[in-house]
Amino acid sequence: MFETVATAQTLDAAAYEASVNDRRIRLVELQQRLRSEPCPVFIQFAGIKGAGRLQVANTLTHWMDPRWIRVQAFRTRTETEREQPPYYRYWLALAPAGTIGLYFHAWWDTALQKRMAGLLDDDTYNAALGRAERFESALTADGALLFKAWFHLSKENQKKRLADIEDDPFQNWRVDARDWRKVDAYDDYVAAAEIGLRATSTLTAPWHLIEGSDPNHRAATGVDMFADALEAHLDERKAINKKAKKKNSVAAPPKLGKNQKSVLAGLDMSGDVSKDLFADTLKIQEARLAALQAQAREAGVSSVLVFEGWDAAGKGGTIRHLTHGLDLRDYQVVPIAAPTDEERAHHYLWRFWRRLGRAGTITVFDRSWYGRVLVEWIERLIDEHALQRSYGEINEFESQLAENGAVVLKFWLHVTQDEQLKRFKKRAKVAYKQWKLTDEDWRNREQWDAYEAAVHTMVERTSTSVAPWHLIPANSKRYARLRVVDLFIEALERRLESDRRQRD
Amino acid sequence: MFETVATAQTLDAAAYEASVNDRRIRLVELQQRLRSEPCPVFIQFAGIKGAGRLQVANTLTHWMDPRWIRVQAFRTRTETEREQPPYYRYWLALAPAGTIGLYFHAWWDTALQKRMAGLLDDDTYNAALGRAERFESALTADGALLFKAWFHLSKENQKKRLADIEDDPFQNWRVDARDWRKVDAYDDYVAAAEIGLRATSTLTAPWHLIEGSDPNHRAATGVDMFADALEAHLDERKAINKKAKKKNSVAAPPKLGKNQKSVLAGLDMSGDVSKDLFADTLKIQEARLAALQAQAREAGVSSVLVFEGWDAAGKGGTIRHLTHGLDLRDYQVVPIAAPTDEERAHHYLWRFWRRLGRAGTITVFDRSWYGRVLVEWIERLIDEHALQRSYGEINEFESQLAENGAVVLKFWLHVTQDEQLKRFKKRAKVAYKQWKLTDEDWRNREQWDAYEAAVHTMVERTSTSVAPWHLIPANSKRYARLRVVDLFIEALERRLESDRRQRD
Repeated sequence: MFETVATAQTLDAAAYEASVNDRRIRLVELQQRLRSEPCPVFIQFAGIKGAGRLQVANTLTHWMDPRWIRVQAFRTRTETEREQPPYYRYWLALAPAGTIGLYFHAWWDTALQKRMAGLLDDDTYNAALGRAERFESALTADGALLFKAWFHLSKENQKKRLADIEDDPFQNWRVDARDWRKVDAYDDYVAAAEIGLRATSTLTAPWHLIEGSDPNHRAATGVDMFADALEAHLDERKAINKKAKKKNSVAAPPKLGKNQKSVLAGLDMSGDVSKDLFADTLKIQEARLAALQAQAREAGVSSVLVFEGWDAAGKGGTIRHLTHGLDLRDYQVVPIAAPTDEERAHHYLWRFWRRLGRAGTITVFDRSWYGRVLVEWIERLIDEHALQRSYGEINEFESQLAENGAVVLKFWLHVTQDEQLKRFKKRAKVAYKQWKLTDEDWRNREQWDAYEAAVHTMVERTSTSVAPWHLIPANSKRYARLRVVDLFIEALERRLESDRRQRD
Repeated sequence: MFETVATAQTLDAAAYEASVNDRRIRLVELQQRLRSEPCPVFIQFAGIKGAGRLQVANTLTHWMDPRWIRVQAFRTRTETEREQPPYYRYWLALAPAGTIGLYFHAWWDTALQKRMAGLLDDDTYNAALGRAERFESALTADGALLFKAWFHLSKENQKKRLADIEDDPFQNWRVDARDWRKVDAYDDYVAAAEIGLRATSTLTAPWHLIEGSDPNHRAATGVDMFADALEAHLDERKAINKKAKKKNSVAAPPKLGKNQKSVLAGLDMSGDVSKDLFADTLKIQEARLAALQAQAREAGVSSVLVFEGWDAAGKGGTIRHLTHGLDLRDYQVVPIAAPTDEERAHHYLWRFWRRLGRAGTITVFDRSWYGRVLVEWIERLIDEHALQRSYGEINEFESQLAENGAVVLKFWLHVTQDEQLKRFKKRAKVAYKQWKLTDEDWRNREQWDAYEAAVHTMVERTSTSVAPWHLIPANSKRYARLRVVDLFIEALERRLESDRRQRD
């Protein structure tokens, strides 16, 4: 694929200088347009050492309004980053809509380095590339422009470039033995990179190849390619927004098929526990869970628990019971309320990534990213495409957590309609519970069937072996509480046990 | 001071249970009030191991609406945190206004531990306590409630408590040899803690002592004390807000004294540099700075540069020149625009703390925290007290950066009124510069004298040896650019040199 950029390409200084003004005007105007119709824009500059991606990035940032650009280098991962899935730092580095994020290597750069070092076989390398591709398609489907440029040099030109730098008394400190070793490894590097570039060159986020011998040529080409891409993207966004306004493109309301029985309808709701048995069992569970928490902390095993369920199904109370005996310093409850403006300017999963707890701790989400495929669907705030791809994006998110060693459990607390009504009425009476009952609860209740259908689909699409859904009969609060704690204890024990075995 | 909590205090279970409902109602109601008149609320629970601060915290969080509570434990500092001043993590952990942040040790806990280990003499310990006190007074002056409780146990009661836990088959894993060593060190610990508690017990943020032998007593006392404090605080805030609405309490506009000459008036504005000399010097400077940047990165020496100045004084261009030869991956330009809603819900310095770059990198602030004592003062958005204490808070912030080893430099780019007018007119003509000229620029120009007086005061109050202001004559852009780069090179070389000497 590198034939097109195998020979040095040049642009003479006069021609370059003559068009600098026009380029600057164009870039600044595009930025203004981006501000008025904000979407996220990400630039990824990668390539051969010496091919000038940093200089072109410099030119770009110097020509544009710096207030709306965020440059992010990914050096060695920090301790906090190492505790999280590899994509954690990429997610957190995403620039908000209306600004331009500029990044200096491909998301699959670590895999590329490992491949070079002979540590990755084909399958593993391809899996890493697949992950990158899924990440990118989540971003572009969300309306982002992802402009990716690979700055290339042939082996001869790279040698020449390094020699030139070494000859420059102002610059020669920039080149050391490591760089010359890169020249030696050139062929292997290019072969491995080519596989990566091909695998991640998609319709929505293709790689652009730029020959990097000549500073003028590469700057002009890089800037023009980016400006073209941004302009086309803004035009496209405008057209899409117009269309979206004209005809209603929201997803059809959730509904079960004619002969379909909801997964909730099949639940055995008879489970109950006596007061005494509850008190005894809880005490034992609490102590066991506290001990497991301490072991998990020691072993660095994180847990991510998700609680969803009908209004008044007892999410709050269950979480309170679950956490009652835990060390407050090593768990956090993350209640999901309306997003902040910063969060709204990002992909919807961004705000969950940023709330993940440190290694060895428990993060409990009281409501979660599943709002996307529940309330947003039912309230008709989401279009069909976004809805459909959300399931995949969520699965990808959770599988990254699990792969990183976390215990991921999801609970749907289920009550019958009658039981819910009883609880609503009771809430209205107990003073310190009144704040819990809102008009929204009554409105949601009217949508019972739609919710049930949405839950059915959600379970079908997102209950995986690494992050299973547990449907908890919760007409009896005591039963539900013991059941949830049991399931968590079981999962945590299993993970700690398998960790121990692996270490032995 | 611990006489009041020397003997075990108890509350019988029946009395405790009887009042649980009232306490819950009260807490939830107070939270509602806090939501409607948001101010920050911070709870700090510290004390003797075994005195139950975690259990009381648990009770508090379980009784309140968890959506508006943020629990934050400070375990060992992460790598990222270790790179920054010690208070970095405390700043970043501050809960936003309207919510309650709950923390588990005193800000001076590290100093206390070191003191215990015999590593801190009186002066150093007192300095650490002074820092904590300044941090707290910045928070309380900003309208926050800081509720601090010390859970106490006498030595005998601590022994008894640990023995009790050891006897409980469900709990005994919680106690190990380390805990018993704490009992041995009890007297020293209490003596050192007492100094800390006294030094940081202030009118606005006193320490409350709670005897911790009995779970019911400590929970009831802790919750009631907090609820009382929150209620009183909310009443006080309400009264203040009412008063503030009635009479105009904003600071008087900045004005120089009758015979006072502004620090800007004394500047020699004649500096100029020929085009050729500029080009030659710049090339040398650029190479030198790039090499220094690489050394600073290696040595972990961070730089924090602040640019302020008249509109059109050339901040953007100067920053562009300064960064032209730098490695884009190791510096960031942070342009200060309007704060986000998350940022507005915090102390005004919070948003600057969170933008600090990693160790060894350069952070360039294009406008900065000085907006507080410039535009906010001139536009009359700040009251006199807030204005006056801002200088001290800013000095404290910068001195923490400097103490942590950062190079801190501040530049005021000065142009004359005539020169500014010339540049405004030119901007209106050059297409890719038009976005830079706004109505606000013209309005600011009318306030020239007020700005000049505010700058004068700012320099007087915040130019320190560790973070000096440099007033840069900038009628000649070339002169200003070279001067700024020179000053930075000089400061960076000095710091690297002194670091080298210290290491040898």
